[in-house]
Amino acid sequence: MKRTLLTAAAALSLSLPASAQDEPEGAPSPNQIVETASPNEWVAIDAEDLLIMTLAPDADGSERQVIIQLIPGPFSQGWVANIRSLARAHWYDGISVNRVQDNYVVQWGHPGYDNPESGEADTKPLPDGLKVMSDEDYVVQGLRNRNWRSLHWLVAHGEDLRRRSDPDLSPSMPASMRTAPDSYGAEPGISGGFPIAKFAGNRGFGPVHCYGMVGVGRGYSPDTGSGAELYTVIGHAPRHLDRNIALVGRIIAGMEHLSSLPRGTGTLGFYTEDEAELRTPIQSTRVASDLPVAERPAFEYLSTEGDTFARYADARANRRDPFFIVPAGGADICNIPVPVRSATSE
Amino acid sequence: MKRTLLTAAAALSLSLPASAQDEPEGAPSPNQIVETASPNEWVAIDAEDLLIMTLAPDADGSERQVIIQLIPGPFSQGWVANIRSLARAHWYDGISVNRVQDNYVVQWGHPGYDNPESGEADTKPLPDGLKVMSDEDYVVQGLRNRNWRSLHWLVAHGEDLRRRSDPDLSPSMPASMRTAPDSYGAEPGISGGFPIAKFAGNRGFGPVHCYGMVGVGRGYSPDTGSGAELYTVIGHAPRHLDRNIALVGRIIAGMEHLSSLPRGTGTLGFYTEDEAELRTPIQSTRVASDLPVAERPAFEYLSTEGDTFARYADARANRRDPFFIVPAGGADICNIPVPVRSATSE
Repeated sequence: MKRTLLTAAAALSLSLPASAQDEPEGAPSPNQIVETASPNEWVAIDAEDLLIMTLAPDADGSERQVIIQLIPGPFSQGWVANIRSLARAHWYDGISVNRVQDNYVVQWGHPGYDNPESGEADTKPLPDGLKVMSDEDYVVQGLRNRNWRSLHWLVAHGEDLRRRSDPDLSPSMPASMRTAPDSYGAEPGISGGFPIAKFAGNRGFGPVHCYGMVGVGRGYSPDTGSGAELYTVIGHAPRHLDRNIALVGRIIAGMEHLSSLPRGTGTLGFYTEDEAELRTPIQSTRVASDLPVAERPAFEYLSTEGDTFARYADARANRRDPFFIVPAGGADICNIPVPVRSATSE
Repeated sequence: MKRTLLTAAAALSLSLPASAQDEPEGAPSPNQIVETASPNEWVAIDAEDLLIMTLAPDADGSERQVIIQLIPGPFSQGWVANIRSLARAHWYDGISVNRVQDNYVVQWGHPGYDNPESGEADTKPLPDGLKVMSDEDYVVQGLRNRNWRSLHWLVAHGEDLRRRSDPDLSPSMPASMRTAPDSYGAEPGISGGFPIAKFAGNRGFGPVHCYGMVGVGRGYSPDTGSGAELYTVIGHAPRHLDRNIALVGRIIAGMEHLSSLPRGTGTLGFYTEDEAELRTPIQSTRVASDLPVAERPAFEYLSTEGDTFARYADARANRRDPFFIVPAGGADICNIPVPVRSATSE
């Protein structure tokens, strides 16, 4: 079993010690805490929830593969079903990355679909049977679901990060159990491997636009997003998009193949007609469960309901490893990424 | 005069209307609000505060220039003075970008200095006369300074963003004037063109690690950062670095030349010895005031003390332009970047 720790818990000091002896003593880093997790704290991601997007090889001929974890129910399941249908119809094969806007998003789809400046025809026929979803589906009103039973609510201003198991979690949660709102008026939490928020004013629960989250591009009308046009966040969390667009998953491997692409110079970072050669072709997108078992990638995330995650989240909010002089005393939800690792047999 | 709006206020919808007629009516976007600013709301950045970093041309032979605005006093002025001294000694000429860590930082300096895995010698002699600064200088205890007289404090959870002019702004500000703390327990504000925070527990004021901010790399001891090794943020705001490292400015042009570089595969995103060819050479770094007047770049920022900035910040927190269905009701400090434009004569 190859088990490579992929992202999220990367060490954060700004220099490397020349040797282990040079490193002063201190508390473990978030990364080191993750390494202490027991095997049963790693949760296998269902092959039905893994999307494998293969980009054209780079200039050196190296392969570029991006892995997306689709979000579990009850969130965004109509769009998630559409995305599986589009992958199974091979609709994504031959599309491209058409937009790279610095500190915002990378977006892929049919180049003419969303960009009249592309010089491409404006449509590619979609398969039959896609669901039409509305803005009501951007959030859910309650969380009575096995995936979301236990939430790490993040408590602001210097208090400990709190973990709370609440099988009846719902907007009617008593006020005494509420946590401090963040700068968006939301109560943020991490559960089921994803960042989610309880939005202000009892406006429901929904996933949050953190770095690497994947969403469904749309036009002005909310029901125009089918799942054919997708984007991911490559900068500071654009939380103003929460509740305004559907989030369907997150990138768990190969993010660097998207975040390091050249920025487009057209409106909104779209590649112009003159920059058409910068559009990265997407060769194929497959659901892992459709591949022969031996060819499936396998990934695990650190259970966000376990003790190790609680210690990891606390260490992200209060760095006590040697580089740090002053612990922050808190963290925003997008600064506590959920650790993921590859678990592919070799 | 060429006046190009550069960053920060970019439109945010996820599709382009095929024509102006396709765009539904709505309130102006943050970008459109910035365009209404009167000429006297644009503040010229002093040539002494502009650093021009010229990277080697890219693979196509195109020029790559990065412009850094150094932070005004009272913040980090010892390091800022060192950076001017290093530029004037031409110390930065011939160094390189040595580290690109996804969703974290890009770092440049002498390749051997901070990375024993680089295969390079570990030092390049520094010029005489650099100041040795300590962690006490990461923050200031009061803000009795003309640059910071009027702060846009950001108020969380759905209230309006508030602007407050307080010539005596200091940690002893009455509790009745305090704003809600953010997820880090800080009271964030924007003034003098920069994001700053009043830290929890009367721990002083200091700049904040938002996307594009520039800081001083250091070893384990706080006094090891001279300014010879610099970094910028290329991902979600790593606010746990606030008060742990010196911030000295922000990138106001050419950010994409750093953020789109290939990620390093070594520890902390450093390029390994085998990846030495990925290190982008830095040809020169100059203070604009040292150039002949005709060759100086000129930049302006939108006054963060003016009415247009107040409307812009409010629109970032409450998007009412056509794409948006639900305004967020708030924004974190790093989601309200200060607009900048080029003002170079042609």
